[in-house]
Amino acid sequence: MSRALVTGGAGFIGSHLVDRLLAEGWEVTAFDNLSTGRHEFLGQAAGHDGFRLVEGDVLEDREALAEAMAATDVVFHLAAHADIRFGVDHPRRDLEQNTIATFNVLEAMRGAGVPRIVFASTGSVYGEPSVHPTPEDAPFPVQTSFYGASKLAGEGLVAAFCEAYGMRGWIFRFVSILGDRYSHGHVFDFVKRLRRDPGTLEVLGDGTQRKSYLHVEDCVGAILLALERAEEPLNVFNLGNDEYCSVNDSVGWITAELGLDPAIAHTGGERGWVGDSPFVFLDCARMHALGWRPGVSVRDAVLDTVRWLTANEWVLEAR
Amino acid sequence: MSRALVTGGAGFIGSHLVDRLLAEGWEVTAFDNLSTGRHEFLGQAAGHDGFRLVEGDVLEDREALAEAMAATDVVFHLAAHADIRFGVDHPRRDLEQNTIATFNVLEAMRGAGVPRIVFASTGSVYGEPSVHPTPEDAPFPVQTSFYGASKLAGEGLVAAFCEAYGMRGWIFRFVSILGDRYSHGHVFDFVKRLRRDPGTLEVLGDGTQRKSYLHVEDCVGAILLALERAEEPLNVFNLGNDEYCSVNDSVGWITAELGLDPAIAHTGGERGWVGDSPFVFLDCARMHALGWRPGVSVRDAVLDTVRWLTANEWVLEAR
Repeated sequence: MSRALVTGGAGFIGSHLVDRLLAEGWEVTAFDNLSTGRHEFLGQAAGHDGFRLVEGDVLEDREALAEAMAATDVVFHLAAHADIRFGVDHPRRDLEQNTIATFNVLEAMRGAGVPRIVFASTGSVYGEPSVHPTPEDAPFPVQTSFYGASKLAGEGLVAAFCEAYGMRGWIFRFVSILGDRYSHGHVFDFVKRLRRDPGTLEVLGDGTQRKSYLHVEDCVGAILLALERAEEPLNVFNLGNDEYCSVNDSVGWITAELGLDPAIAHTGGERGWVGDSPFVFLDCARMHALGWRPGVSVRDAVLDTVRWLTANEWVLEAR
Repeated sequence: MSRALVTGGAGFIGSHLVDRLLAEGWEVTAFDNLSTGRHEFLGQAAGHDGFRLVEGDVLEDREALAEAMAATDVVFHLAAHADIRFGVDHPRRDLEQNTIATFNVLEAMRGAGVPRIVFASTGSVYGEPSVHPTPEDAPFPVQTSFYGASKLAGEGLVAAFCEAYGMRGWIFRFVSILGDRYSHGHVFDFVKRLRRDPGTLEVLGDGTQRKSYLHVEDCVGAILLALERAEEPLNVFNLGNDEYCSVNDSVGWITAELGLDPAIAHTGGERGWVGDSPFVFLDCARMHALGWRPGVSVRDAVLDTVRWLTANEWVLEAR
């Protein structure tokens, strides 16, 4: 039996990973400060003997983190400040919660002798890429967001720790992930705003931004498959869908699913906000070579998310 | 007249930059904690009306940094922990002094409305590149050192600040810089050890590592030329020589210049230490396109450095 520590284990992706690990017989510690994570997401895990939740902060509680590391085989470091859009209002937040916190996790691993780390990075590290679909060895990117910059820094730290101390690392550059327990991002915002005002919907940018989305179950499956099959000291993988859609497509699916026909007000411009990439589409050939394929289309990932949000309105209320 | 703030202005490269800026009519504030910077390097600057030194630490003294920024046109951020070799002994040092400190400088600039930053990065951000000579848009690199990772993070922050707040940035990825006032690195180590024991010299690695070196006067000239001529919001330049040498070449030049013939003891292996890149050679076509060419060969850069160290033995004593 293997022991996992999942930082951000009460969050959207983290809690799905916790469930999957428990189902596969791992012992799992979730480490979460519950700032955006939720007890509700751990309802299934809580009943499991092999599970425990440690409430702690990867930035502030270095002692608790060190203790939680004991006898761990793999750290899944998912805790992060994941809101790319508001980086310009709080640039230090991304530095602290994504870069310095990742350093803390790696140092705690080194102290406890934990040999393997899975790191949740982002396709945002490619900035506005010149190549689509974008492969992992795309031309050296220029950062356009504090979020991307902070995750790029985290990747660099993971790589340097692996090189220096013989750890092994799996870095995943995600597109936006959708599905049950999704609790921030554009689908969340649209559904929430349409509940208040079903007649109009403001869309950031001109709506032609092209994006790829992956369902959280596909995401978690890919992580565990790569952990099993990718054997390098450091393994870097894009993780996204084989297709993309426009923001306007996504808006159409969401409003149709809700049975609404709002007036759409585009704010205009190629980008929705500073750091928004007009075209996100990752080349996932490396993951495909391991035998992985996404099972849920972009459209179904959006629709599943709308249905879950509609069935779980407390999530919309809480923000 | 323009006003410059040079962090690390009492250091090796920083003090040369200060001298050049003063000679060209700038007002210059050097901001330095004198941890590796030296009053002696500012002997020429000290006599100049347009110069002042502020003793302060970019990591700790955020207030002093903010004050020093007032009415500044360009920040040249050269303060750093520049010793790549010992990163594995002190991983937090690179994070703090190169990443977090760079964030502090950028935040202080934002607070004071300083519009332009020059950032001293490093060819180490390429890790062990797959392409030689390595261009700025080489394939997305994997970090192999804490130093490289910390500077990559600094680059990302510079880029994100430029994108978010309309600053303009000039990022330079240096090879190793040599010349007067050089006070750490392999030439320093070799000369220092040969003074103690002229009969033997230990060389890290197998001596076949290929490296490029640039003279500090060429480096400073390139920075000021690019600042004048490169007009993008963010400008990224490699800065190195048109040629490279092996470590064994360099050892031969140094010992011949000193009139010594020591027994050479290689420690063996392709790399001298964790994070040492066996082949550093940067493609500087972007700088060439601006009309810049290095004036000092790799060999002359090494020899000038040996001569300066020999004439300034106090530098060798002090460490």
